[in-house]
Amino acid sequence: MKHTFASDNYSGVHPDIMEALINANRGHQGSYGADVFTEEAVAKFRALLGNDIEVFFAYNGTGANVMGLSAMTRSFDSIICSDLAHINVDESTAPEKFMGCKLVTIPTTDGKIYPSQVEEKIQRIDDQHHPQARVISISQTTEYATVYSIEEVKALSAVARKHNLFLHMDGSRISNAAASLQADFRAFTRDAGVDVLSFGGTKNGMMFGEAVIFFRPELATTFKYIRKQSMQLHSKMRFISAQFSALLSNELWKKNASHANAMAKLLEAEIRKTSAIITQRVDANGIFMIVPTEVIPKLQEEHFFYVWNDKLSEARLMCSFDTTEEEIRNFGKKLKELLA
Amino acid sequence: MKHTFASDNYSGVHPDIMEALINANRGHQGSYGADVFTEEAVAKFRALLGNDIEVFFAYNGTGANVMGLSAMTRSFDSIICSDLAHINVDESTAPEKFMGCKLVTIPTTDGKIYPSQVEEKIQRIDDQHHPQARVISISQTTEYATVYSIEEVKALSAVARKHNLFLHMDGSRISNAAASLQADFRAFTRDAGVDVLSFGGTKNGMMFGEAVIFFRPELATTFKYIRKQSMQLHSKMRFISAQFSALLSNELWKKNASHANAMAKLLEAEIRKTSAIITQRVDANGIFMIVPTEVIPKLQEEHFFYVWNDKLSEARLMCSFDTTEEEIRNFGKKLKELLA
Amino acid sequence: MKHTFASDNYSGVHPDIMEALINANRGHQGSYGADVFTEEAVAKFRALLGNDIEVFFAYNGTGANVMGLSAMTRSFDSIICSDLAHINVDESTAPEKFMGCKLVTIPTTDGKIYPSQVEEKIQRIDDQHHPQARVISISQTTEYATVYSIEEVKALSAVARKHNLFLHMDGSRISNAAASLQADFRAFTRDAGVDVLSFGGTKNGMMFGEAVIFFRPELATTFKYIRKQSMQLHSKMRFISAQFSALLSNELWKKNASHANAMAKLLEAEIRKTSAIITQRVDANGIFMIVPTEVIPKLQEEHFFYVWNDKLSEARLMCSFDTTEEEIRNFGKKLKELLA
Amino acid sequence: MKHTFASDNYSGVHPDIMEALINANRGHQGSYGADVFTEEAVAKFRALLGNDIEVFFAYNGTGANVMGLSAMTRSFDSIICSDLAHINVDESTAPEKFMGCKLVTIPTTDGKIYPSQVEEKIQRIDDQHHPQARVISISQTTEYATVYSIEEVKALSAVARKHNLFLHMDGSRISNAAASLQADFRAFTRDAGVDVLSFGGTKNGMMFGEAVIFFRPELATTFKYIRKQSMQLHSKMRFISAQFSALLSNELWKKNASHANAMAKLLEAEIRKTSAIITQRVDANGIFMIVPTEVIPKLQEEHFFYVWNDKLSEARLMCSFDTTEEEIRNFGKKLKELLA
Repeated sequence: MKHTFASDNYSGVHPDIMEALINANRGHQGSYGADVFTEEAVAKFRALLGNDIEVFFAYNGTGANVMGLSAMTRSFDSIICSDLAHINVDESTAPEKFMGCKLVTIPTTDGKIYPSQVEEKIQRIDDQHHPQARVISISQTTEYATVYSIEEVKALSAVARKHNLFLHMDGSRISNAAASLQADFRAFTRDAGVDVLSFGGTKNGMMFGEAVIFFRPELATTFKYIRKQSMQLHSKMRFISAQFSALLSNELWKKNASHANAMAKLLEAEIRKTSAIITQRVDANGIFMIVPTEVIPKLQEEHFFYVWNDKLSEARLMCSFDTTEEEIRNFGKKLKELLA
Repeated sequence: MKHTFASDNYSGVHPDIMEALINANRGHQGSYGADVFTEEAVAKFRALLGNDIEVFFAYNGTGANVMGLSAMTRSFDSIICSDLAHINVDESTAPEKFMGCKLVTIPTTDGKIYPSQVEEKIQRIDDQHHPQARVISISQTTEYATVYSIEEVKALSAVARKHNLFLHMDGSRISNAAASLQADFRAFTRDAGVDVLSFGGTKNGMMFGEAVIFFRPELATTFKYIRKQSMQLHSKMRFISAQFSALLSNELWKKNASHANAMAKLLEAEIRKTSAIITQRVDANGIFMIVPTEVIPKLQEEHFFYVWNDKLSEARLMCSFDTTEEEIRNFGKKLKELLA
Repeated sequence: MKHTFASDNYSGVHPDIMEALINANRGHQGSYGADVFTEEAVAKFRALLGNDIEVFFAYNGTGANVMGLSAMTRSFDSIICSDLAHINVDESTAPEKFMGCKLVTIPTTDGKIYPSQVEEKIQRIDDQHHPQARVISISQTTEYATVYSIEEVKALSAVARKHNLFLHMDGSRISNAAASLQADFRAFTRDAGVDVLSFGGTKNGMMFGEAVIFFRPELATTFKYIRKQSMQLHSKMRFISAQFSALLSNELWKKNASHANAMAKLLEAEIRKTSAIITQRVDANGIFMIVPTEVIPKLQEEHFFYVWNDKLSEARLMCSFDTTEEEIRNFGKKLKELLA
Repeated sequence: MKHTFASDNYSGVHPDIMEALINANRGHQGSYGADVFTEEAVAKFRALLGNDIEVFFAYNGTGANVMGLSAMTRSFDSIICSDLAHINVDESTAPEKFMGCKLVTIPTTDGKIYPSQVEEKIQRIDDQHHPQARVISISQTTEYATVYSIEEVKALSAVARKHNLFLHMDGSRISNAAASLQADFRAFTRDAGVDVLSFGGTKNGMMFGEAVIFFRPELATTFKYIRKQSMQLHSKMRFISAQFSALLSNELWKKNASHANAMAKLLEAEIRKTSAIITQRVDANGIFMIVPTEVIPKLQEEHFFYVWNDKLSEARLMCSFDTTEEEIRNFGKKLKELLA
């Protein structure tokens, strides 16, 4: 069994990233971020996103999300997100335990949440009995592998501004979104009104490491303590930083993400040749399809993937920076046979 | 300025570890530990420490400590440790925030705590108003780079048993302790009565990664949830596991730790040729020395190290797996000149 | 403006309760529950609910709920409840902050949740990434002043047993439910499968105080620490206990609750004489009615009540142990005039 | 057995307070503090302590302390206090659990902490690894029933100002301190530099209730949410407020506290006639004395009190608003007999 379409974190490390790790392994360096590699990586983020941003590296996506949200919230606040948001269903109760906050969820059919839905959830402001709405959190790319348009992000940001909320973006697959939108990162983050961003590395070819980006530096003044307390401060920081420097060099982030997205498009084309039903727009590197239940284990024999929704017999197929056309053709062929 | 003696986490990654990372970078692997590298690493830990142990990998030492302690405590409990314990002074308030527990501290002069001191802190058991003593936590190697003898660990374990407490060991430098004691790991952990162990990797030549070892499997039944909730679950787990497999192969752990310890002994010999005062036994890879205040910045120019205690003008010098004899000779020569 | 129908906690203290407080004010008594009044009150609860129950007094309903739930949960668990549950919308984020748990909510139209809805929310058991369902929490009387039948409670308890969950009941208005069901407390709590119960006092004529009742004593073994840590342990405990003794004597609880329920029935009859729409069954001491928006402030001038739902122009009218027939007639007359 | 000297919370309620409760029991009142009794009580506090203070009522001392400290701290902070502080040894781990903060303790011999001791504990400011000193917390009256002079409070406040810390006062026995100092409350709280004060009611004749007083209103802007979340918001608030109004009327607070203090002085005189050793200054309403161990149970037969320190055979004797001269004479006589 190969784990072909299981998840983009089943992939290994891109060779350029591995090379960067090897190159960073020279002599002693200051720990906890006081090293030249971290300086360089932060500079690269600033070149992309603005010189006044604050950048902090973390171990993983859950850590980046929970810490970024912590910087914006008091323990009596609530965070509005989709009911499928990674922070709501895939981070155990880390958000609740670490922040104390309530996650107020909006049922989603396409992975996104929309302004009118958000506004309905902003209730009982100033009422001491009720959790106080403080942050809108969206995933870009969403958990359904759809991508918010720049206008959609701006519309949510307008709601946030109107009600004095913050806008948080879980960007564990942000590079896939950027590649999909054919936009630079600024356009749909900072310039669209995002306040704090989790910038993903691991799912786009890194070994470990995510970044928390603050577009409002005043939110970051005590963040170093939050990171340490959250057990997310790495001692040999250069080995996260060097990976990000490589990812942000030579547009490696775009090369990897564009490839994964393109493979998803190819896979979509193969699937559309069959009777399988594709349930979501294919904006980025994931595909959701409904096939007869009995077909699933046979498909998984060769190319493993996860069942997303048992009742619907809906499968999730994720492509990665290292997915090959051959795997797709092979999968398509098999699917055709099984559904024939 | 070179960071020669600043900390063992200023070192990079041992070449054998780097090679293991490169070798692990093959194709897709199950994430979150469902991979062959993790299976292998766990087997190596079991070979060393017993087949019935439970092993969980984590990102860093603070994470390993806080999670291991979480598995043994209820939020109304207290943890008895030295006032210099890493969990008390170098982990922000992660222990308090994550567990809710109080750390009850014992003033230490040599980094260790002793049975009679611990017994004095076990107070007001069954009194609802008072934090309930639940765990004794010791660091092996201690923060003063001293090493508990096997008998000393056993004596603390006897206190723990007598009062129905658990014994936790922060082993971020456990390999240095094993090398110092010329004992295998079992002898001063499991066989000496330790219940939960943080097994350090990063300070002994790894890029990232620590292990939480349970000698009582019943303490680990819900630990997978604790790890996820603590934001310490790595997706591409194979890259922690492969490092541990390398560390535990060909006695690399011992080679690295013994070298660091030997360098500390050499450094001790050099220092003892001068008027500098060595304040702690040199059991492992660290040396604490008092020199005139004005000498410190001059020494740091070439070989950086940290001042441990400003008032005493006491410096901490850490050796690592990559410390060289030349660095030591060089430092010794400089010290002699300055103190002449 | 009189607060006639605002809330049952706008009422004062029943004269029998006040007399009990005066009688308890004799000399010195052991604090924190070591007093004869507490002994007596616990005995009264045991007479009602079984000799093997554990009883702990608390200050208020939020405290009783959060502590009772704490005794059943680990921080990585989830609690399934209605989206209108007091624990979800009226306790700030006390549940999340104190327990770390997630509240998983079911949209309700009548204040109740039903077995099939609950079963849908029990997902991804054993999956480390996902909050683990642990407790079903229901309010009896519900926030819509409806009352679960004994069979309905039993059906939820069956779901709990089937999935190894616990069943929690928020009984801040439990006496109104008992009066409505014309059942004794046992029948719809312990005998219907409830594991932990918040037994309300304040809303039924007490000055302050609620009780947490454990039907499984093994859940209560460390509860004294949880109560103290939750800042809910009263020093002069006799003044809570004596109130409960009075409430449970001479069926005062029933007298008060039956009166409040009867007043709600009378109010319902008055309202039904008009064009106002009653939106919920009138099982207990509250009525929800829709009237034209412009009528509301005029009605409130004389008899204040709260608007429950602005959009629907739905009002909530609560009756209490001290609501008078005259107030109801008066209100009914006014309503008729305004809607004529 | 009478609980004569066990604790000031073994006493009941002063008759004037009980009368105030009875008087407050008229008709309906707004809940959660929106009532005329609360308005009046707050006005009385403002008359005493300044018009710009913010006043919030709570259930108990632990609640008042933890909430007041919460308003000043971030979860990565530390609070400096005596090792005997109520917040350190008698509030379970409520401070750690609720705030996440570390309590950094100073060994005390007289219940007080002093500026030079505090300054030694202010370490590693700006160091992300280390809890950040944020608040100095003192008890007035201390746990040894000693009283800080106005100058001593000012000296601690000066340390706080110098290092940008806050000064918190646990005033569960503040009236006894005021009576002892023959000063008004302002002189040793606000005017001496205290930022947040827990103002005790229960131990000075109330049934339940404490107040959190903010001398810097900007610290209180979100406190209503903290109180609710802390499960310390009472619905029928008038019954706390009316007690405080009574306590602050006709100098009842002073009458009660002065009586308790005077009884302690009388008790001191009795004890000094014997060979028992009084170990602390008798500033307020408590006495600590060493007597032969075998004498203690005989003394306790008639007049119960607690042993403070088993090893030293040291007893704590607390006087209250209702302690009688007869009880003192009686106790003195018995002591003389036993020590003869």
